[in-house]
Amino acid sequence: MSSVKMSSIKLLVFSGSTRKGSVNTKLATAVTNLAKDMGADVTQIVLSDYPAPLFDADWEAENGVPQPIKDLGTLMGDHDAVFIASPEYNSGLTPLLKNTVDWLSRLKPHPIKAPIFSLGGASPGVLGGVRGLVSLRMTLVGLNAIVLPEQLSVGGAGSAFHEDGSFVAERTQGFAQAQLERLLEVAGKLKA
Amino acid sequence: MSSVKMSSIKLLVFSGSTRKGSVNTKLATAVTNLAKDMGADVTQIVLSDYPAPLFDADWEAENGVPQPIKDLGTLMGDHDAVFIASPEYNSGLTPLLKNTVDWLSRLKPHPIKAPIFSLGGASPGVLGGVRGLVSLRMTLVGLNAIVLPEQLSVGGAGSAFHEDGSFVAERTQGFAQAQLERLLEVAGKLKA
Amino acid sequence: MSSVKMSSIKLLVFSGSTRKGSVNTKLATAVTNLAKDMGADVTQIVLSDYPAPLFDADWEAENGVPQPIKDLGTLMGDHDAVFIASPEYNSGLTPLLKNTVDWLSRLKPHPIKAPIFSLGGASPGVLGGVRGLVSLRMTLVGLNAIVLPEQLSVGGAGSAFHEDGSFVAERTQGFAQAQLERLLEVAGKLKA
Amino acid sequence: MSSVKMSSIKLLVFSGSTRKGSVNTKLATAVTNLAKDMGADVTQIVLSDYPAPLFDADWEAENGVPQPIKDLGTLMGDHDAVFIASPEYNSGLTPLLKNTVDWLSRLKPHPIKAPIFSLGGASPGVLGGVRGLVSLRMTLVGLNAIVLPEQLSVGGAGSAFHEDGSFVAERTQGFAQAQLERLLEVAGKLKA
Repeated sequence: MSSVKMSSIKLLVFSGSTRKGSVNTKLATAVTNLAKDMGADVTQIVLSDYPAPLFDADWEAENGVPQPIKDLGTLMGDHDAVFIASPEYNSGLTPLLKNTVDWLSRLKPHPIKAPIFSLGGASPGVLGGVRGLVSLRMTLVGLNAIVLPEQLSVGGAGSAFHEDGSFVAERTQGFAQAQLERLLEVAGKLKA
Repeated sequence: MSSVKMSSIKLLVFSGSTRKGSVNTKLATAVTNLAKDMGADVTQIVLSDYPAPLFDADWEAENGVPQPIKDLGTLMGDHDAVFIASPEYNSGLTPLLKNTVDWLSRLKPHPIKAPIFSLGGASPGVLGGVRGLVSLRMTLVGLNAIVLPEQLSVGGAGSAFHEDGSFVAERTQGFAQAQLERLLEVAGKLKA
Repeated sequence: MSSVKMSSIKLLVFSGSTRKGSVNTKLATAVTNLAKDMGADVTQIVLSDYPAPLFDADWEAENGVPQPIKDLGTLMGDHDAVFIASPEYNSGLTPLLKNTVDWLSRLKPHPIKAPIFSLGGASPGVLGGVRGLVSLRMTLVGLNAIVLPEQLSVGGAGSAFHEDGSFVAERTQGFAQAQLERLLEVAGKLKA
Repeated sequence: MSSVKMSSIKLLVFSGSTRKGSVNTKLATAVTNLAKDMGADVTQIVLSDYPAPLFDADWEAENGVPQPIKDLGTLMGDHDAVFIASPEYNSGLTPLLKNTVDWLSRLKPHPIKAPIFSLGGASPGVLGGVRGLVSLRMTLVGLNAIVLPEQLSVGGAGSAFHEDGSFVAERTQGFAQAQLERLLEVAGKLKA
């Protein structure tokens, strides 16, 4: 990363869930705090600030892509890297996340190809959302996004985060740091 | 199928898309017509008759499961078999279908475990939605549904259906018939 | 299961690994013992008794399908149900299991369509081989097998089995029993 | 790619099949020729030159990793990028390819994390091996490899290649060229 300073890497972070107390929102916050400590320029958003109706091609033909999605697309295109904390709902994505991605894919050019992606998932059980991440990866890859291989699976998520937005377990914190280091390094090199 | 008459098998059919002119709705219609000809008791519905907001656990805590989803759950529980014609949106399900399934999974007992499922997908290109069906199968299986292995992939779907709701290609019609025969046979045996 | 006695259901059980001390072989043994207690007619085999070279179409053109694979195919075709305890190697099947399945698929008619399948996986870590089972299910479904949805994932498998071939945790034993009950019930109905 | 010349990018290419007349070997050859024309330093190998027994942990404990696999690991570690032309066998990898990858994963450090990967698949039918590539991607990603999203699916592969090792269809050649350009560009940047 000789030619790119860590501080110049712009990282966008969000959760696939918007419910109060979501463990994936806590994961997004912990990743945000950690990446800031590592010197990245981080923007954390919540998807409920970018609302859109359930995707419907007839609605789109009449109304076009909703303005909030256009705004999110512009924001995404303006970042070098994206971290998604993605809950697993029935072995797949949340309807909110799938809806947001499908709407974003309608923009021309679509903004999902621009940044590189890194994924994580938190769950109360032991699996940490691993099947949901299989689906999310397939969807992003199908949109020609580069998705880094490392995944941050946080099981037992009910007690995995401190109130101040940090990881409870040093081991998880270590995994998160290693994954973010690779993300920022690759983003820096691809930007150069 | 000695002990169960074909006419007593109740089959529910719907498409994952509700847009006008959807090739998957045409596939759902062609399957409906064929299954009726084969003697099944078929109900074809459109998901837009069972609307629900984007799934949100906070919304659910306040309002409960929406009545249309409860109605759909009752309908599904009343059928022996379900055929879904599922479009592929970005290698996954339509937001509408994922949202409907996730809401249904909140009912206690949830109705997806009751009938057996058979899947198909139509697409304008050659692949016939095969990656979307991988995701859909993972989601249904995660909900403990029995999903039969045969899949009806209809590529080149723009010219695959007659106006009267039948298949253009005899070969496709043959595949559809074989798949429905197995679905009705297995449904009959499991019901016995 | 009025018309079919549990004792008449023939269940074939094997592990995807043949190494000494394999936790998946222990899982296969525990499932075998449990199914016998439940009244099924169980055959447990080890795949190393059915050896075959790495699949190669040129080799097959010259030599045909190896006799041990033909024997395994006959055995499989003679059973109503199959339980596979499948290790996860690098998010996929063991080369041994994939090789065995690919050879079996060359028989005409291939025997994988005949019985119904139920899957499990044991692993030392927490995930219990869940990604490997995604691949195994895709492969079996692609061969038109009916694969029941329930999966027996046994994490922490190093201490999950007693020396006498039973499950240590009552909870796991309960899951195994429920899964086998559904397998035997469905197999009985489909056989009727 | 200012700081890295195309000619300095080392690309390793191989097919997942070794049978005579394999369409995936033809795809590997066509990709090799194209990448050479684009200025890359390409090594095309055949996996049968790196034989290994079916992976077995007991065998490994006694004999260690086979020398041909060590040689392949060294070769892979010496390249910046790898292109795999992967047949789909029953919705998964060939036993040969899975076996080779599983053996490679036993090397310390394992060489699959080093280069970046790009995938393609050829098949006689229309699907071009798309389900097999889902499995291959899961396996490589599970080994922490960066796998670029673009996939070169070549359907109707029986008539897709000229005798001289070039693509018949200009459209396919264009897709191949675009995919290789991105592969070489990303490999160059990550190497810088």
